[in-house]
Amino acid sequence: MKEKINVTVWNEFRHEKRNPEIAEIYPEGIHGAIARYLGTLPGLEVRTATLDEPEHGLTDEVLKRTDVIIWWGHLHQGEVQDSVVDKVHRRILDGMGLIALHSSIGSKIFRRLMGTSCGLRWREMDERQRVWVTSPGHPIVEGFGAYFEIPHCEMYGEFFDIPQPDELVFISWFQGGEVFRSGCCFHRGRGRIFYFQPGHETLPIYHQKEVLIVIGNAVSWAAPISGLDKVERVSHFPDPIEKFSVEE
Amino acid sequence: MKEKINVTVWNEFRHEKRNPEIAEIYPEGIHGAIARYLGTLPGLEVRTATLDEPEHGLTDEVLKRTDVIIWWGHLHQGEVQDSVVDKVHRRILDGMGLIALHSSIGSKIFRRLMGTSCGLRWREMDERQRVWVTSPGHPIVEGFGAYFEIPHCEMYGEFFDIPQPDELVFISWFQGGEVFRSGCCFHRGRGRIFYFQPGHETLPIYHQKEVLIVIGNAVSWAAPISGLDKVERVSHFPDPIEKFSVEE
Amino acid sequence: MKEKINVTVWNEFRHEKRNPEIAEIYPEGIHGAIARYLGTLPGLEVRTATLDEPEHGLTDEVLKRTDVIIWWGHLHQGEVQDSVVDKVHRRILDGMGLIALHSSIGSKIFRRLMGTSCGLRWREMDERQRVWVTSPGHPIVEGFGAYFEIPHCEMYGEFFDIPQPDELVFISWFQGGEVFRSGCCFHRGRGRIFYFQPGHETLPIYHQKEVLIVIGNAVSWAAPISGLDKVERVSHFPDPIEKFSVEE
Amino acid sequence: MKEKINVTVWNEFRHEKRNPEIAEIYPEGIHGAIARYLGTLPGLEVRTATLDEPEHGLTDEVLKRTDVIIWWGHLHQGEVQDSVVDKVHRRILDGMGLIALHSSIGSKIFRRLMGTSCGLRWREMDERQRVWVTSPGHPIVEGFGAYFEIPHCEMYGEFFDIPQPDELVFISWFQGGEVFRSGCCFHRGRGRIFYFQPGHETLPIYHQKEVLIVIGNAVSWAAPISGLDKVERVSHFPDPIEKFSVEE
Repeated sequence: MKEKINVTVWNEFRHEKRNPEIAEIYPEGIHGAIARYLGTLPGLEVRTATLDEPEHGLTDEVLKRTDVIIWWGHLHQGEVQDSVVDKVHRRILDGMGLIALHSSIGSKIFRRLMGTSCGLRWREMDERQRVWVTSPGHPIVEGFGAYFEIPHCEMYGEFFDIPQPDELVFISWFQGGEVFRSGCCFHRGRGRIFYFQPGHETLPIYHQKEVLIVIGNAVSWAAPISGLDKVERVSHFPDPIEKFSVEE
Repeated sequence: MKEKINVTVWNEFRHEKRNPEIAEIYPEGIHGAIARYLGTLPGLEVRTATLDEPEHGLTDEVLKRTDVIIWWGHLHQGEVQDSVVDKVHRRILDGMGLIALHSSIGSKIFRRLMGTSCGLRWREMDERQRVWVTSPGHPIVEGFGAYFEIPHCEMYGEFFDIPQPDELVFISWFQGGEVFRSGCCFHRGRGRIFYFQPGHETLPIYHQKEVLIVIGNAVSWAAPISGLDKVERVSHFPDPIEKFSVEE
Repeated sequence: MKEKINVTVWNEFRHEKRNPEIAEIYPEGIHGAIARYLGTLPGLEVRTATLDEPEHGLTDEVLKRTDVIIWWGHLHQGEVQDSVVDKVHRRILDGMGLIALHSSIGSKIFRRLMGTSCGLRWREMDERQRVWVTSPGHPIVEGFGAYFEIPHCEMYGEFFDIPQPDELVFISWFQGGEVFRSGCCFHRGRGRIFYFQPGHETLPIYHQKEVLIVIGNAVSWAAPISGLDKVERVSHFPDPIEKFSVEE
Repeated sequence: MKEKINVTVWNEFRHEKRNPEIAEIYPEGIHGAIARYLGTLPGLEVRTATLDEPEHGLTDEVLKRTDVIIWWGHLHQGEVQDSVVDKVHRRILDGMGLIALHSSIGSKIFRRLMGTSCGLRWREMDERQRVWVTSPGHPIVEGFGAYFEIPHCEMYGEFFDIPQPDELVFISWFQGGEVFRSGCCFHRGRGRIFYFQPGHETLPIYHQKEVLIVIGNAVSWAAPISGLDKVERVSHFPDPIEKFSVEE
């Protein structure tokens, strides 16, 4: 494990600037709320980046220093440049962790990693959500009991078109009658990905303690191991390790 | 299960036209060799399609009628039009099976479905390969014992950069010292994908009985169930199924 | 695939004999209700067996002829003899399918196959259950849309202490606020196992069309492939396949 | 993560006492060799236990203090008392990690956790083994490149009758022509299990640096998270969380 985990919290950061109601809930932006919490944890070095910065704030320099990236995208995911998505994708396959939040199922980077449509059922009626733990020994649920509740949520329901998660950590119950795989771990290349469904721009979900604890736990889980630069990617025509002669 | 499975065997079909040595091994093309075998099985309706046909032979009409597509790509995968890849991808998520052969790890469609680099180690020295069964009750290995051999192969070795397969059916041993996950099942959307590593254009591997039997078994396994058109994709703002009132 | 699938429906068959209310719902026993439905499907040969028969109706002869066993146990699971459990276990690892229903999570055979406690949360208040499909292309959900409902159920809730299923087919929503992984596929040895949670002795759930269709689909999915007798189990000191000399 | 990880290294410790050749290789026993290495790592508190101690050295007191147990069993696994196996099993489901080495595939505890026969193919001819990494970002392979070699090994070959691992970390190549899934992660209950195949009593494999590093990495990976005592096991007839009325 590395000494220090470098985290970059990425956000579209458009809603918060355009909609006063949202700005009231997240005056520093959603990224600001998450970064503020993560800043209180030991062993993390936290920075933020947003869509409207040059290269969306994700320069080669920033990516190179990032161990775990947290992603919040929504209505403007189409504006993320493909060249930046390419670089983030490569960096994840090389070991950078990704925590994709809520509507980031529609982001270019998440869809590219999943290979599926990431389609689902959704509804915005401020109903109650109950998040049940389905992997009680998993590092991401450290400190949790059987479930936690989100008083008012945006509903995301099955069928959720993703590959079967490598580990399924949370399943949610919704007041309106749906269920959802709300916490999903994926391993891709040398990188680890956690999809975490709770969240919404018009609800104070990223101020809720349980939600922040999960994100913090996920950062530790997704951080790369050391020495990944030793690992070979593609090897064209390596010498055979064992000697052999080809028989007719 | 459907009455009849419609199979389309797709091939780049360039090697066979340009290289007399390859043409001698596969006078009808690799697609022709595979289609000829599949044509002997009951319950299959087999056609072929190739890169140089209009729309690569994969018109809307052809795709709509295809239950399982078999894919052989190699050096010219970059020439496959993105619009066709988009349509094949959508059709797989809607239920069409895909059997990706050998070097098709480099194809646009396979990489899009995997979300990873699909990188590996490879060597062309005609060494011996032994394909071990690791899921002995799986429909794809029906009729097989512990292993089968390929006398002369192109070596593909680990690390193979794919998501962990939903089911791992074969692991191979190579004379030169490597191992490889040679038979990998993936479920994506409503579709089933089988990656099968054995094969090479300059070796008669697609004339080998065991290899053809695996491909035939995989066609049955990958064929879509009926009634997939009933399944909802995305549902925007459906009415709640259960009535509820939002509490403060 | 075999020509004909031999199915044995096993039931404790005690409730139905002792409790007139239950006898009214299941006059032929739960096994009788399920067997009656399966008998209407083509390609199945259906018999039943119960706890109070000699060897619980599971003689060597019966087991040898059984391709798929359906299991319903509840309060008297401790009375199943270990020697019979041993034989059923071995036969499953050799390829026989198992469909474990509802309270069979407490059966000796299911716990032995899982290796975990199979503990859960449960409540009997006749609440509503909604069973959501999470693998829409899977053979077990052939014919289903997004979900089906059970008007009155016994609630089973998470955390459900099982190994992560090889394929997760259903997740349920309950009126009282819980969720549950209600349809779980496992591969063990050469055999396939489906756990299906809906059911209860005092509710007519095994008369409900959707529930019966799922059980019928699961029988087809769990039936063994042919030729499993060729597969080696343990091989002590086989000759090396490749010649080698040991270097110092 | 806990401050300190308490590790108990368990060994049959019979070979080493009875066979002078083995005693020469492992004068302190296999457990002693492993414990000596682990003792050099920071953050571990290491003790040992062996078959011939009272309760096999695994008293309630010892088990309660153990976070991760390392297990080496071979010819005398049948002598382990069922009551001790019961307690170790329960403790693993409650969160204790297990690292099962080599021939421990035949141990009561490993078979109980797997639910399968754990059968395989094996041969003792001191051939060469090459252990390939198939999950390069996994904590258990921290510090490793593409593969490492074991100069002389006991061969274990497929088919290995285990449930599909939750994560497959190593696949081995053997000089005699076989392959094997040599590093397998399983999650059971709240506990994590790692099966690691390399090892043999008549070969100095547990003195080899790479093998010891893997075991040390696995200890960190398998250590339980904190707060597992909060997690509910079984909940009989809990009050509904949501109010509802049952409709006819």
